[in-house]
Amino acid sequence: MNIFVINSGSSSIKYRLFAMPAESVLVEGHLERLGTAGARLHQSSGRTNPPADSGGVNAPDHAHGLQLVLKALTDPRHGGPLTDLSEIDGVGHRVVHGGADVSGSVQITEAVIETIQRHVELAPLHNPPNLAGIRAAMEAIPNVPHVAVFDTAFLSTLPPRAYRYAVPTDWYTEHRVRRYGFHGTSHRYVTAQAAVVLGKPLAELNLITCHLGNGCSVTAVARGRAVDHSMGMTPLAGLMMGTRSGDLDPSVVLYMLERGLAAEEIGDLLNHASGLFGVSRGLSDLRDLEDAGRRGDGEAALAIEMFIYRIAKYIGSYAAILPSVDAVVLTGGIGENAAAIRAQLGELLHPLGVEIDQAANDACVGGATGLLTGPTAALPMWCIPTEEELLIARDTARLVDRGHAPT
Amino acid sequence: MNIFVINSGSSSIKYRLFAMPAESVLVEGHLERLGTAGARLHQSSGRTNPPADSGGVNAPDHAHGLQLVLKALTDPRHGGPLTDLSEIDGVGHRVVHGGADVSGSVQITEAVIETIQRHVELAPLHNPPNLAGIRAAMEAIPNVPHVAVFDTAFLSTLPPRAYRYAVPTDWYTEHRVRRYGFHGTSHRYVTAQAAVVLGKPLAELNLITCHLGNGCSVTAVARGRAVDHSMGMTPLAGLMMGTRSGDLDPSVVLYMLERGLAAEEIGDLLNHASGLFGVSRGLSDLRDLEDAGRRGDGEAALAIEMFIYRIAKYIGSYAAILPSVDAVVLTGGIGENAAAIRAQLGELLHPLGVEIDQAANDACVGGATGLLTGPTAALPMWCIPTEEELLIARDTARLVDRGHAPT
Repeated sequence: MNIFVINSGSSSIKYRLFAMPAESVLVEGHLERLGTAGARLHQSSGRTNPPADSGGVNAPDHAHGLQLVLKALTDPRHGGPLTDLSEIDGVGHRVVHGGADVSGSVQITEAVIETIQRHVELAPLHNPPNLAGIRAAMEAIPNVPHVAVFDTAFLSTLPPRAYRYAVPTDWYTEHRVRRYGFHGTSHRYVTAQAAVVLGKPLAELNLITCHLGNGCSVTAVARGRAVDHSMGMTPLAGLMMGTRSGDLDPSVVLYMLERGLAAEEIGDLLNHASGLFGVSRGLSDLRDLEDAGRRGDGEAALAIEMFIYRIAKYIGSYAAILPSVDAVVLTGGIGENAAAIRAQLGELLHPLGVEIDQAANDACVGGATGLLTGPTAALPMWCIPTEEELLIARDTARLVDRGHAPT
Repeated sequence: MNIFVINSGSSSIKYRLFAMPAESVLVEGHLERLGTAGARLHQSSGRTNPPADSGGVNAPDHAHGLQLVLKALTDPRHGGPLTDLSEIDGVGHRVVHGGADVSGSVQITEAVIETIQRHVELAPLHNPPNLAGIRAAMEAIPNVPHVAVFDTAFLSTLPPRAYRYAVPTDWYTEHRVRRYGFHGTSHRYVTAQAAVVLGKPLAELNLITCHLGNGCSVTAVARGRAVDHSMGMTPLAGLMMGTRSGDLDPSVVLYMLERGLAAEEIGDLLNHASGLFGVSRGLSDLRDLEDAGRRGDGEAALAIEMFIYRIAKYIGSYAAILPSVDAVVLTGGIGENAAAIRAQLGELLHPLGVEIDQAANDACVGGATGLLTGPTAALPMWCIPTEEELLIARDTARLVDRGHAPT
């Protein structure tokens, strides 16, 4: 069964074609700078190495962009593995915001599209391109199930004490102000993987999972289910990120309004010019920050220190409210590769029983799964690479199978 | 030596007269509803019981209000213990915001007044009445030292990783956006008391101190000094409070602006109609909430549950970054009296080693100091009543003494 997975962002379409249930990647690609004159399509598969780059393409919108992607899928010169699009058995779509209504992956119907539409206001940067991708794909690849896999779904099990804010109740009942959480597909994937590598049933597993990439979030997992999470109503809250502030006294927003900044400008600065970038005055890549820090750049060093310190505090807060913690799990680009950051985090978390094994930590990079702590650590810390696209493919294949099952 | 302590708020003047170094309270009082037609002055001392109530008084501003207070101090019919104001040897003033410039208590000079003035923008509700009280008192009681004791001072030892926000650096350098922290006098007082009751030198003491009253805050204390704190640039951030939201995705402010609320309205709602009051739709007193919860009011029960849960998470986050924790210390009206809340907090913190001793917890109310946990608890939890006025009196007496010392 061939499952096509689409992650349709505001200015990009990322995609992967899986052979299921083997879970092998037949092809993967990335259409970037969608909607601009500099649009480019990169595609790679087992057959082409290095990845084929189509050069400049004409992709003014998601519909045109998807047509280019589908053409590349069937173009042998670009490593396209298919002869015809009818070889695709199902399409999985990443959708950011399903709100409180959605607790799992679902086959896309008009009602599901309405749900995604209803949450545009809560995810104005993400849900519209997700929807555009869905609409284009359903038109281009009709007659197969399309499945929505929501970033919020794994967080739908949060109890009220974790998802409610201490604001006037009508902000919740009338304006839907609550914690939703994001990165749920990643947290769910590594939770399932942790059950495998720790050899413990999911329903008995207590974890603190940290997705550390461009966006960063932490989830408290009790008995296999999410019970708390660092992101909020929007992905701005929680940990410090590449360009996002994370947690912040909400009065600061009101104060900067009084100082003359417009609301849009404040939102833009908090999302795109804060975090590591904001503190270091312009660096958001951890490797650049580490280099600058080594050269004596105090602001870069402070940015890294704050980044790690805030992760440690979230881990501590969840360690206090979980019945026990089987492991801390690190994932995402930083979690999977930044051994020096992991070592400093482990050092800081020594009071909780984390003891990094330096050799194991240094060795566990580039997609490896591994235990980062030594045998005497009271609190094990693992690196488990995330595979959100694979989880989307699994969910989609499962729903395609179900559609074929006798009723 | 008689030290007069003044806490001058927007609509009240609270005061206490101490005989030092005996630390005995000669008289205490409260002028409420200052600036309104309903202004009233209550005063009590060892000689009058119940407290003398002056009935309605004419106190249109702080200067007039303070004149009434000083008259009551020398009026035997109201239990006034002094025959003449010249018997006052020094005046201590509570000041909320000294910003990053102030690390301790200081005798008030023009430069100190300028410092307080410079931070009006950061504490618009607090510093102006503090200043009005200082000016009125310096005029009415000249020729003795007046001392400013700042709420922010104990938090001035926070390291950059704790006080900086991950926002654009010029918000910090040009607009002074950082964590300052508040309730410092209370956290400092109970830290000093903890050194006494735990029998450990202050410089070796690691604590998590929780001030739980109308306002609520947590401080991480390492080797006797504050290293992190839950309140932020303003007292809105951190724990859930009686009417304040505490931590909140900063995007919620921008979202509510988009929904049509004015910035002033949002600030007002977050400060005065959120917290326990906001979630329960109108109750901010914990006893009322507990009663309502027992009667089956789900929103009241949720408000309490959120309140306790968030305290537990802060304690956990500080337990992760402190080298060790000698004790959790609870203080403030709730911390000193709400045994049921303390019991639930202890239950939640069981993973950290808190084991409440029910009898000890139930007994420790009404101003008692006591250990709330049993002998096997890995993490002891103490109740230590706060005495901010006493600490202000001590600092003032010390500076008066220094003024009299041979130079």
